[in-house]
Amino acid sequence: MKYCSLCGNSVEFKVPQDDNRSRFICQSCGEIHYQNPKNVVGTIPIFEQKILLCRRGIEPRKGMWTLPAGFLELDETTAQGAHRETIEEAGAEIEIGPLFSILNVAHIGQVHWFYLAKMTSPHFSPFTSESLEVAMFDEETIPWDDIAFLTVKTTLQWFFADRKAGKIIFSDAMPTHQIDLKPLIRMNE
Amino acid sequence: MKYCSLCGNSVEFKVPQDDNRSRFICQSCGEIHYQNPKNVVGTIPIFEQKILLCRRGIEPRKGMWTLPAGFLELDETTAQGAHRETIEEAGAEIEIGPLFSILNVAHIGQVHWFYLAKMTSPHFSPFTSESLEVAMFDEETIPWDDIAFLTVKTTLQWFFADRKAGKIIFSDAMPTHQIDLKPLIRMNE
Ligand SMILES: [Zn+2]
Ligand SMILES: [Zn+2]
Repeated sequence: MKYCSLCGNSVEFKVPQDDNRSRFICQSCGEIHYQNPKNVVGTIPIFEQKILLCRRGIEPRKGMWTLPAGFLELDETTAQGAHRETIEEAGAEIEIGPLFSILNVAHIGQVHWFYLAKMTSPHFSPFTSESLEVAMFDEETIPWDDIAFLTVKTTLQWFFADRKAGKIIFSDAMPTHQIDLKPLIRMNE
Repeated sequence: MKYCSLCGNSVEFKVPQDDNRSRFICQSCGEIHYQNPKNVVGTIPIFEQKILLCRRGIEPRKGMWTLPAGFLELDETTAQGAHRETIEEAGAEIEIGPLFSILNVAHIGQVHWFYLAKMTSPHFSPFTSESLEVAMFDEETIPWDDIAFLTVKTTLQWFFADRKAGKIIFSDAMPTHQIDLKPLIRMNE
């Protein structure tokens, strides 16, 4: 951020009065431009014993597999956003179920949410503008080495462990899995 | 938003290519400026049979009572943000417990989160820069008619109902209360 979105003059990055962290502050109109984490909302679409994954058609992680998910928009709830993304990225018809997982990814300023979802029909759109491919998987056929995001992989691992334990219930009495993810330390960095 | 925060030229509000909702788009550099809901994170600080409330020292709802809460910042998790706000607004020492409630307030682009928290000492700061007053209440003494926000009132109602039912447990097995709040229809509007 270099310019004030209200008046177009330049901003400085400094600590405002009565605050304790640096913000972008307009040198002309004085506006403080706060920046906050974003919510990424998605679903685990389930039909019989299989779950739906999308192969990403856009960066980042183009070509890798993911659950349908995207940024929460203004004027929608987290469940509505998760529903919308499932239609946009997979063309699947679903009924939203309970909130299954919340994953804080603080180092990139994101919170990821996944809801359980019942597919009301086995049909989906194999090609959408955002997905190269859409397909149904069971635990054994999931491309575990080609999952796009750690939040998705973690959520899928929780899901299959819970299913084995008989803990997947479509009820608000289901506790929500939660984790705070740290940056991955890569061996070759 | 009138000006591009990257280049300072003017923005238009229109639907980008391959999108389906209007965004602020820079007419010069082409940047699309997305706007997304914000997370407000807080706690229910508990000491013995009482809970802590703060009387707001700033607008909106200055002078009314609330749980300590505020906007989630970059580089912190939701639990860390809730902890920080409890220190800033109440000067209370706490241990964060399970996530107790998530309230979507889509019409104002916010999601409110409240964690259970154990006060590790009965002490707090009655005066802070953001609170006019801080005090401990039980269910009967809570100023129910002077609670600043519906998300706080709803969370407090859930809390006391759960406590009567013996359902307040400091464990991740506790389900998270969830609700989508609609705009209030006021009788005299
Ligand atoms: Zn300005
Ligand atoms: Zn620009």
